[in-house]
Amino acid sequence: MEPGTGGLAPGRTIDWVDGAVELIDQRRLPDELVVLRITAVPDLVDAIRTLAVRGAPALGVAGALGVALAVRVGTGVDGAVASLRDARPTAVNLARMVDRVSASLADGADRVLAAAIAVRDEELAASLAMGERGADLVESLVTGTGSAAVRVMTICNTGGLASVERGTALAVAQTLHERGRLAEVLALETRPLLQGARLTAWELARMGAPHRLVVDSAAPALLARGGADVVLVGADRVAANGDVANKVGTYSLALGAREAGVPFVVVAPESTVDPATPDGAAISIEERGPEEVLHVAGARTAPEGTSALNPAFDVTPAALVTALVTDRRVVRPSAGGDVTGPHRSRSSDVHMS
Amino acid sequence: MEPGTGGLAPGRTIDWVDGAVELIDQRRLPDELVVLRITAVPDLVDAIRTLAVRGAPALGVAGALGVALAVRVGTGVDGAVASLRDARPTAVNLARMVDRVSASLADGADRVLAAAIAVRDEELAASLAMGERGADLVESLVTGTGSAAVRVMTICNTGGLASVERGTALAVAQTLHERGRLAEVLALETRPLLQGARLTAWELARMGAPHRLVVDSAAPALLARGGADVVLVGADRVAANGDVANKVGTYSLALGAREAGVPFVVVAPESTVDPATPDGAAISIEERGPEEVLHVAGARTAPEGTSALNPAFDVTPAALVTALVTDRRVVRPSAGGDVTGPHRSRSSDVHMS
Repeated sequence: MEPGTGGLAPGRTIDWVDGAVELIDQRRLPDELVVLRITAVPDLVDAIRTLAVRGAPALGVAGALGVALAVRVGTGVDGAVASLRDARPTAVNLARMVDRVSASLADGADRVLAAAIAVRDEELAASLAMGERGADLVESLVTGTGSAAVRVMTICNTGGLASVERGTALAVAQTLHERGRLAEVLALETRPLLQGARLTAWELARMGAPHRLVVDSAAPALLARGGADVVLVGADRVAANGDVANKVGTYSLALGAREAGVPFVVVAPESTVDPATPDGAAISIEERGPEEVLHVAGARTAPEGTSALNPAFDVTPAALVTALVTDRRVVRPSAGGDVTGPHRSRSSDVHMS
Repeated sequence: MEPGTGGLAPGRTIDWVDGAVELIDQRRLPDELVVLRITAVPDLVDAIRTLAVRGAPALGVAGALGVALAVRVGTGVDGAVASLRDARPTAVNLARMVDRVSASLADGADRVLAAAIAVRDEELAASLAMGERGADLVESLVTGTGSAAVRVMTICNTGGLASVERGTALAVAQTLHERGRLAEVLALETRPLLQGARLTAWELARMGAPHRLVVDSAAPALLARGGADVVLVGADRVAANGDVANKVGTYSLALGAREAGVPFVVVAPESTVDPATPDGAAISIEERGPEEVLHVAGARTAPEGTSALNPAFDVTPAALVTALVTDRRVVRPSAGGDVTGPHRSRSSDVHMS
């Protein structure tokens, strides 16, 4: 693994480049744009664990490309694949895409790489589709509120950095912006790792979209005061009953949105929906180390010896979700919409396997 | 104004010492314990604005002692008093205590100082009373939950640093701890200024009480998962209808508590109740500068040029408040209890004037 400017195409955040996985090191943003070139699976597992790459769709692509990398390296493939699969527990995409590409292991390296590239290409197409579908929905939801343009509130980072290009929830904001319909994004800073401050602000500045940061705890009160027209969030896993696991703070935002009568919209690719997980209670919530809470940007915030509790995700009940937007459809979980319903299943759908 | 070890009595955080105001500089905690000795009102106004002293009761005492300081300096008293009164807009205690002590201005320096000292002594007595009354209430509220001891969740800093000794919400935790009934305090770090991480953790460690820090946005989800038995918060102002202005994030915590069926208890001295403010909508919410959001411990968190929105407080509607505990009584705003009701008013009550 070596830093460098890399061979990534413009706008792309992770890719297969000349026999290796290249990805933007998100730990270094916004101070430096560094592309890691990763040639061994343990380095990729480390990059995943330390959040050099993060975001459910990006983790899926990292897992897919990682299997191709394991095959290219050639020794210890099974162990490498298993370690990739378990690198982070909450996002279903990682394990699912590792499994999907691994299904080609018996067919040789070319087939494995083709399967991995297909995962990448589907995420690219999915981001475009989610942006369009989500922007259509948002325009319809906020019509009649008198807003000439839409004020969006969002948490964490759900842009190109969380995907391959464009992203999920932030792709919707980007599409609204391209349509001239975005007034502002209120981005939650997203403690403890500040993905909103570091990554979302960086992506919004790059796309020229107006935005302001807010501390996470201010969001429900700002919604109560009419500060945004819609809340857009991503998802790490959507359970069969419509419960949504996402970055810690999402549940608080959903409570605030409901109380304020503001639509709460989850934007995620179909690969995030997990029919095998019946509900939120069945989702393993990753507890990360206390040091993330006790430090910010390398500086200790609390007295020496202080303990911390650090759940990285939370679960938002389906009843609080106005709509789930995927690359294929819009479902209304709070109105009884079935996220595993007939509009979703297609026997030819490899995403669903 | 000069730093030093000061002449403060043990446990006391602000006082009148040998003709000057001395106070612990909360900006330097938890790294250093520095006592400021302040001999001129502009320095005190600066200390208030920059949060060297903060917390509604402590601001009331600072305002009271500040009037005595203005009189001692002897020139420009009216201007000095006016600048003190307006140093921060949201906490009613500051303006109220400045006004109360100023009522003695015509009676000479000794009377002014005696009035200021009386404010301090009432806050000392009030903290003790709130701790006892609040601990009694909490024990009655969580009886039957099966907890041998109480798990408290709290935001910001409401301990001795926010008062003169012991504090408000944290005084209740301290009393529970002294009674052997405190299992743990989950302290919200309280962005942007991290009063929870810097000050509350420091105070809890000093009193030997078990505690863990959490990021603010995790609190509602932790409540939903049964992580605490009661939420205890302070208040900067309580409106006549029972709406509560407090540190930003309090409203989010109240929504989470209601959803989880956890009692949400506001602990504040009578001086915080403002019959002249009809409801939360009438409370001026202080918007502070963006730099507090964009930096942590001196380190920039977002790209250069990023904007931020920084409301320092929010309003929690009375309907979400299980109980208001003051130094004199317990009211149940969510059950229709009148915070300005007959149990409160006494014509001899100078606090009420």
